[in-house]
Amino acid sequence: MTESEPTARGACFRLPVRVYYEDTDAGGVVYYANYLKYMERARTEWLRAAGWEQTDLAGAHGVLFAVRSVALDYHAPARLDDALEVEARVVAIGRARIDFTQQVLRDGKPLCAGRVRIACLDAATFRPRALPDDMKEVFAGDD
Amino acid sequence: MTESEPTARGACFRLPVRVYYEDTDAGGVVYYANYLKYMERARTEWLRAAGWEQTDLAGAHGVLFAVRSVALDYHAPARLDDALEVEARVVAIGRARIDFTQQVLRDGKPLCAGRVRIACLDAATFRPRALPDDMKEVFAGDD
Amino acid sequence: MTESEPTARGACFRLPVRVYYEDTDAGGVVYYANYLKYMERARTEWLRAAGWEQTDLAGAHGVLFAVRSVALDYHAPARLDDALEVEARVVAIGRARIDFTQQVLRDGKPLCAGRVRIACLDAATFRPRALPDDMKEVFAGDD
Amino acid sequence: MTESEPTARGACFRLPVRVYYEDTDAGGVVYYANYLKYMERARTEWLRAAGWEQTDLAGAHGVLFAVRSVALDYHAPARLDDALEVEARVVAIGRARIDFTQQVLRDGKPLCAGRVRIACLDAATFRPRALPDDMKEVFAGDD
Repeated sequence: MTESEPTARGACFRLPVRVYYEDTDAGGVVYYANYLKYMERARTEWLRAAGWEQTDLAGAHGVLFAVRSVALDYHAPARLDDALEVEARVVAIGRARIDFTQQVLRDGKPLCAGRVRIACLDAATFRPRALPDDMKEVFAGDD
Repeated sequence: MTESEPTARGACFRLPVRVYYEDTDAGGVVYYANYLKYMERARTEWLRAAGWEQTDLAGAHGVLFAVRSVALDYHAPARLDDALEVEARVVAIGRARIDFTQQVLRDGKPLCAGRVRIACLDAATFRPRALPDDMKEVFAGDD
Repeated sequence: MTESEPTARGACFRLPVRVYYEDTDAGGVVYYANYLKYMERARTEWLRAAGWEQTDLAGAHGVLFAVRSVALDYHAPARLDDALEVEARVVAIGRARIDFTQQVLRDGKPLCAGRVRIACLDAATFRPRALPDDMKEVFAGDD
Repeated sequence: MTESEPTARGACFRLPVRVYYEDTDAGGVVYYANYLKYMERARTEWLRAAGWEQTDLAGAHGVLFAVRSVALDYHAPARLDDALEVEARVVAIGRARIDFTQQVLRDGKPLCAGRVRIACLDAATFRPRALPDDMKEVFAGDD
């Protein structure tokens, strides 16, 4: 998936996340779909840290991001009250997409990890659109 | 809350709902916020049974519904794999609102019950708007 | 509901909460059930700030908390990317319950507000049980 | 992933699912994590149709199922009020795991599709455990 990627960047963003009842299920652990929520929070905060809010992107830039694919492995369960860290790392940038590796960790140990591909879409037509130039610059200065 | 209501109607709608892992929490029971999801499903299916889809209402009629208030009592917990029934009963209709009593039942026994008030809003301005006439007629023929 | 409450305490806890996509719905606003998630996060962090984790309470004290009732009014919608504050204030303590008033605010303006009653249960039998003594002391020193 | 699988079975299960507000996000579409909820509902109903409830499995057989990995592609968004079909197809069975291909379809067109690997765990120790014999027989009569 990463062969011949046009650009790549290793910057890593980490967001602390607490596990609440809402995140858990009757198995006593975090419900498997909810790791995707944690991962999106980390991607969103990484975007925000880089200067973009998703609402501004849709308004000012006319773009929005949609998830194209996820591939995740579940190694060990997170539990109620756990203090987790959620990692988002850009590993490749294409004309109209960004590839992340993401991990959810407890005490430095990965509980859930994998890849998420995000597509950049035109906010009006929902068709693929090139990433805004200033965003590409921040992601990969030497692009 | 029901004194001097302009109209009232006892028609009751019941929707079967199954409890899945997604609905439960680490306490082994349905998470308290998720009864509100069940209740909205029942209100939506009741609307659909009366001939309206929420997307059509926003498009063709220019109205949308927003929850104004909820008051719920939790009597006993629902559990994984439970086959529940969710009840929605219109108890009062105003110019721009509908009051429901709702229950979530297992084997006829109420687990969670209360009232939900819905406001009718203009889909463009989000300000209160009279219910569409044909909707009022269906809700309360003798209105 | 508050007449003749055995004790009361005004201590207020505030938790900052960010709105993510997971919290919103197709109406473009925070889904009505999700305010209950925010409110539970605030109650949990208030407990934690007072020195208790829910997992410890179940283990060491043999108690757990269950929501008995909620009564909420929705004043104005929260939206994607909003930075909210969620308030939890203990307004009354009984032998086996705690009453909170809670608010979700944006820029100091309440968007959703109401009351939540929590019951203290025996973790084994799920029957009502007196609050642990040291917890009552913290909640209301003059109890 | 399927090379040299010990057994395989093509039986396909389809569950109708309606999209409610709870499933959508501010982008106007089904939130990406919620397809995993739909997929688990279909796996659970397929189990139930084969004669097992998850609560019975934990109780009588002492086993539970945990998701080991997911790999999903998102082709097109589902929207509010959509009537979807969720497909679960067993494609491989190992000593202590089951591999599914799953799809979420609207009018026969796949919106989200991929693979989910489930591990069979001992309900007490959370360690991998062989699938119950009678379950293996149903999954793959010629095993």
